[in-house]
Amino acid sequence: VVVTGSGVSGDPRPLGVFDSGVGGLTVVRAIVDLLPGEPILYVGDNGRFPYGPRPVEQIRGFALEIAEHLVTRGVKMLVVACNSIEVAAISDLAAAHGVPVVGVIEPGARAAVRATRNGRVGLIGTEATVRSGAYDRAISALAPDVDVLSRACPAFVEHVERGDTSSDELLRRAREYLGPLREGGVDTLILGCTHYPMLSGLIQLVMGEDVVLVSSAEETAKDVYAALVSANLLRRDPAEPRHEFLTTGDRESFRRISHHFLGPELRGVGTAAVGVVEVAT
Amino acid sequence: VVVTGSGVSGDPRPLGVFDSGVGGLTVVRAIVDLLPGEPILYVGDNGRFPYGPRPVEQIRGFALEIAEHLVTRGVKMLVVACNSIEVAAISDLAAAHGVPVVGVIEPGARAAVRATRNGRVGLIGTEATVRSGAYDRAISALAPDVDVLSRACPAFVEHVERGDTSSDELLRRAREYLGPLREGGVDTLILGCTHYPMLSGLIQLVMGEDVVLVSSAEETAKDVYAALVSANLLRRDPAEPRHEFLTTGDRESFRRISHHFLGPELRGVGTAAVGVVEVAT
Repeated sequence: VVVTGSGVSGDPRPLGVFDSGVGGLTVVRAIVDLLPGEPILYVGDNGRFPYGPRPVEQIRGFALEIAEHLVTRGVKMLVVACNSIEVAAISDLAAAHGVPVVGVIEPGARAAVRATRNGRVGLIGTEATVRSGAYDRAISALAPDVDVLSRACPAFVEHVERGDTSSDELLRRAREYLGPLREGGVDTLILGCTHYPMLSGLIQLVMGEDVVLVSSAEETAKDVYAALVSANLLRRDPAEPRHEFLTTGDRESFRRISHHFLGPELRGVGTAAVGVVEVAT
Repeated sequence: VVVTGSGVSGDPRPLGVFDSGVGGLTVVRAIVDLLPGEPILYVGDNGRFPYGPRPVEQIRGFALEIAEHLVTRGVKMLVVACNSIEVAAISDLAAAHGVPVVGVIEPGARAAVRATRNGRVGLIGTEATVRSGAYDRAISALAPDVDVLSRACPAFVEHVERGDTSSDELLRRAREYLGPLREGGVDTLILGCTHYPMLSGLIQLVMGEDVVLVSSAEETAKDVYAALVSANLLRRDPAEPRHEFLTTGDRESFRRISHHFLGPELRGVGTAAVGVVEVAT
């Protein structure tokens, strides 16, 4: 069945968003803000989290498997809400299915190039993301003169998942991680991990007022907005959409951690069901 | 009772956030993201909304009355989450009580000055905010060489309150409102109304990829973070905080509209009670 956006109620198909775990929920949240009428089908591969230490070939296989599941479920777009997946598999994903694919790296890189005044951009992310050099390549393709200083901040994810954004220990770590970037004179900093928007108060404080922070989650949501509008894929139904959250891991821990991401105000997942995708482990 | 931040569980007092209605909830949301451990006491003066057309003296009186209520309730900080209130009363508020006061205009102005590369900053807001010239003054105090182009976008608020961020009618209006700013060559645009972060996908699409959007809600939350850390006012209790939302208007309509702001995922206000502040009308 081919559903197009030309009908009165537009294109009712969900957006397929996926990640190795819960980090991609910051992208979901940003999409829901900008497009409150769009239903979202989310898959977090918590059962095989973290992807970081895995071989690229294996991550690619996982990503294609989840994308296949989402496409079979009838999504109108794939949103790769995970830096590690994007690094490993974005071109295969784009080639494999007939739906548009939006990632997090290109929107973040573009926003940073737009924001820098002195041509020195900082990048923070997981070890895997920093090591991959994907942001460096994306930025250099857009603006060869811009320098990129990168720094892995491995402990940040764990603090965010505990709901800690302001402990003394975290502040000490932030000073240690971010010191070299500050000393390197970056005037723009990419939050290159979908967990980091929750730390933007801390990071702004440590980096100082003159540094522009770029959230790849928000920039990705804006790209999704633009892609849906320009391809005429918006849902036009005034009824509230039904979201669905799937995890390959433990439902209860997914539900608990997701509170930090979909807003601590959230009590329970409401109309959204947490289910399980069958995957090989 | 004087409570200080030096104890093991820190300073348990809530942050007092207030607005003429529900727009300030985007500021609440940004604060909750960055500081999930901080309790918030919110007052929306929906019963006397909108403030825009009222005389400055009257807005000042309302603001001082609400601030007094919040201070009596023991807040540790006042967050003025409304441009119109800030324009009318910020200096009186700062003088009236012994707690720190954070507004939305200065953080937004500072972020815009930091972000602009060509010295041309755009500002969008309500008629009252644009007419007041408050952002122009704040920017000119920080950077006299920066030009500010302003444009009132009166219809935006109404669309957001209906949950509409992507209709054809809204897109047409956005093109009409933002056209002169685009043609004026601004490279940075302040979203000078607490409703507008919900429209950042639309606004980025219409303004084009090269324009940096500054959300005064997010920038204010970062200022609140910095102020709490530097004054050692953080709550250190691992238990989840209890938020409280008060309106001077109709509870049910407040509850309904607040879903668009505290996240459409939100079903009901959870542990937060919607109450009524007694005020003269």
